[in-house]
Amino acid sequence: MSETDIKEEDQVTAAVPEEEETDATDFLGLSDDHIREIVEALQSEEMEKVGTLLEDLTTSDKAELLEKVTSETRKSLMLAFERYFDADVISVLQEDIRTDALEDMTAGQVAKILSDLDSDDALDIVAPLDPEFQQEVMRKLSAKIRMALEEGLSFPEDSAGRLMQREFVAVPQFWTVGKTIDYLRAARDTLPDDFYDLIVIDPAHHVVGEIPLNKLVRSPRSVKIDDLTLEEVHSIPATMDQEEVATIFRNENLASAPVIDEDGRLIGIITYDDVIFVIDEEAEEDLLKLGGVKEDDLYRNILHTTKSRSWWLFINLLTAILAAAVISLFDTTIEKIVALAILMPIVAGMGGNAGTQSMTVAVRALATGELSGTNVWRVIGKETAVGTLNGMIFAIIIGIVAGAWFHDIGLGMVIAVAMIVNLIVAGFFGASIPVVLDKMNIDPAVASSVFLTTMTDVIGFFAFLGLATLFLL
Amino acid sequence: MSETDIKEEDQVTAAVPEEEETDATDFLGLSDDHIREIVEALQSEEMEKVGTLLEDLTTSDKAELLEKVTSETRKSLMLAFERYFDADVISVLQEDIRTDALEDMTAGQVAKILSDLDSDDALDIVAPLDPEFQQEVMRKLSAKIRMALEEGLSFPEDSAGRLMQREFVAVPQFWTVGKTIDYLRAARDTLPDDFYDLIVIDPAHHVVGEIPLNKLVRSPRSVKIDDLTLEEVHSIPATMDQEEVATIFRNENLASAPVIDEDGRLIGIITYDDVIFVIDEEAEEDLLKLGGVKEDDLYRNILHTTKSRSWWLFINLLTAILAAAVISLFDTTIEKIVALAILMPIVAGMGGNAGTQSMTVAVRALATGELSGTNVWRVIGKETAVGTLNGMIFAIIIGIVAGAWFHDIGLGMVIAVAMIVNLIVAGFFGASIPVVLDKMNIDPAVASSVFLTTMTDVIGFFAFLGLATLFLL
Repeated sequence: MSETDIKEEDQVTAAVPEEEETDATDFLGLSDDHIREIVEALQSEEMEKVGTLLEDLTTSDKAELLEKVTSETRKSLMLAFERYFDADVISVLQEDIRTDALEDMTAGQVAKILSDLDSDDALDIVAPLDPEFQQEVMRKLSAKIRMALEEGLSFPEDSAGRLMQREFVAVPQFWTVGKTIDYLRAARDTLPDDFYDLIVIDPAHHVVGEIPLNKLVRSPRSVKIDDLTLEEVHSIPATMDQEEVATIFRNENLASAPVIDEDGRLIGIITYDDVIFVIDEEAEEDLLKLGGVKEDDLYRNILHTTKSRSWWLFINLLTAILAAAVISLFDTTIEKIVALAILMPIVAGMGGNAGTQSMTVAVRALATGELSGTNVWRVIGKETAVGTLNGMIFAIIIGIVAGAWFHDIGLGMVIAVAMIVNLIVAGFFGASIPVVLDKMNIDPAVASSVFLTTMTDVIGFFAFLGLATLFLL
Repeated sequence: MSETDIKEEDQVTAAVPEEEETDATDFLGLSDDHIREIVEALQSEEMEKVGTLLEDLTTSDKAELLEKVTSETRKSLMLAFERYFDADVISVLQEDIRTDALEDMTAGQVAKILSDLDSDDALDIVAPLDPEFQQEVMRKLSAKIRMALEEGLSFPEDSAGRLMQREFVAVPQFWTVGKTIDYLRAARDTLPDDFYDLIVIDPAHHVVGEIPLNKLVRSPRSVKIDDLTLEEVHSIPATMDQEEVATIFRNENLASAPVIDEDGRLIGIITYDDVIFVIDEEAEEDLLKLGGVKEDDLYRNILHTTKSRSWWLFINLLTAILAAAVISLFDTTIEKIVALAILMPIVAGMGGNAGTQSMTVAVRALATGELSGTNVWRVIGKETAVGTLNGMIFAIIIGIVAGAWFHDIGLGMVIAVAMIVNLIVAGFFGASIPVVLDKMNIDPAVASSVFLTTMTDVIGFFAFLGLATLFLL
């Protein structure tokens, strides 16, 4: 019955028994207490209890358990309770943890896991493996699965070809609704586990259209597939970048979309859940990069993490030394007025913070496509104006504070002017550095903050110490 | 036909005509050239040309056009070409732009737009309107839509009740597949535009289960709905926070899920596209907050943006003054050794950068639930260890640089020790500040960096200048 029917019936509904109330926390993953209970049972070797506790967990709970315990506990759990940690659990594990876990297994075990999964999930698992082990696993697979995976690996990383699954349901355009439903019933055990649209193809396997299942089920048996087919089909070339795929799904509100090869032939489909995965991954990447972290290293070991983080720190050290060199130009000024050394980090720091605000908005807008040629000058102009206004506000505040602190009106005026200058610089460069980097095909999320901090440090120190040298000596 | 059928037929496939190749850029939104062409045609009052250019645009292209042009151009476009900017375009506009555009219209026009939309999209539009105008619009709506919107507005912001649509398809458990399909065919024009699952309910409207359409279409007509119903249904209480909703969809791979009221009765559904919206919004929020921006202000005016950003800068000014106060403790030392003033920002800055790396990873892991009681000490310990190792690396580098620059081995050793101390502090506090804030129910994405910078500045300056006072004077 539809919504309106329900509304009417609602009025004769009986009271609801209390125990039917839903407890929201049921869904929200695994509690720390639950994990502790499992770990303690494992440590005291109460295997039966561990089994009972694992029994109740969902797939994502089991993955969370494996991710959160120490690597020794993880190994013992997976060894002793192999049957609970099936292919589905392995497939949703965080990549570092998964690769670590798989490399403890034999190639045969990994091949068994891959055979139980859809082609996109299997590809996800096999791609990051050590090449030698990957080859060994490949040799244990059936020819059909091996070929599918090898073709998948031939597509560039982060492309639609890597994301797609090869399991889909396609129907020829000359069928009717009735014939299609009969076919789906007859083939029901060989169809993919989940699908949302039927792909309509011509005899040469070119995509003609797409039919959402809800259009199929509401149509009489006699209707021709051709008459139902939505013309505006969004076929995705296998080489398209996954970020572009996500944009299309978002803009067009798709549940699934066909993937085509370079000859325009149907080779797979991408579904909304692949897209959610991409959106999560890309959002995480941008956030981490802005924080100076290359990729999610929560589960990575100390040495590897130290190494990957040290590059970023090294580049920042160079810019810090550059800023120090600027300060050293004014060493005789500082010797005479030590208050300058005390106050100078305020000017530089405020510039860094204001610039980071502008930069964050610009980086985000570039990632979503909201910032482009049409409005780039408007945005840069606005950020510069905001910097100017905030510069004036904080010039007044810091001018009064510094003047009162060191009983020196001249010093207050110098720091006030330096503050305005640096916050204008911060607004202008905060917005324009990401834009310029983007034009040069350098990822603005990674590189913007180094250039920005260099600007706000160098100009902050130079303006403040320079003005002081001119007017206070 | 299924995948395997296709593989076989593939061998007799004819060659593919070249013009069928798909051009990827077709989907990727509107080009800046296209926008320029429209704006120029509008300015030279070639209205027919504007109409032709608008004709070709998709809904999301039209929204992008309105977002990227100046507000004057937007107003003239919407006035002169009202019929192109229908309810669907309005509904996908960025919130600031949309509210601005709607407040130029009459209450009757807005009511007309709301009537054309699904209840969740209508609610999205009506919620941010000025309360007085909102009331005026409400009065122009039909009683049915008004009541639905008023009930929607009664749910907390960012709750499942705000996210859900009231249009769904529910069937009683005693029906058969055949009866269900017959019903869907008979009711086809009153069904929601899109749906992916049927909700199975008992006579009291409690949710019993959910049937994906693909399970329905592959089952024979005689099968009972009850036998198809998937038991593990994820009913979502209307008051649940949208972030929790997204977690459930992600973990359980849902296309849609029923929303229930406090009595457990079905009142709406949430679909995967709502969830994609939430994921985008939450990811954006975290990224912006870490950058010191409260919300996306790309489309907001200069004064409003200045005001909202100034709070963050003000708090940072206080911490900068605190750091300056620490420096002032050592003013006589700096007077004697001016090299300290030159080098001290390096120590503080490196601490800030290393701490931001740890903090970013911790904030992200808290948001995804990957960091919790079970592994919190392990993560803090790891971050501290990474800080220690990077501290040693950069101690050696900066020790040599500073020693050589100022021809002073003692100075090199002092800055080296200060660097180690500050990077250990950065690793420890970078990971633990977000955790502590989270425990105190303060959003770690907003507040962490202020506390962190305070720590790394204060300890950076104190360690360096303090050690210098002890050993170099």
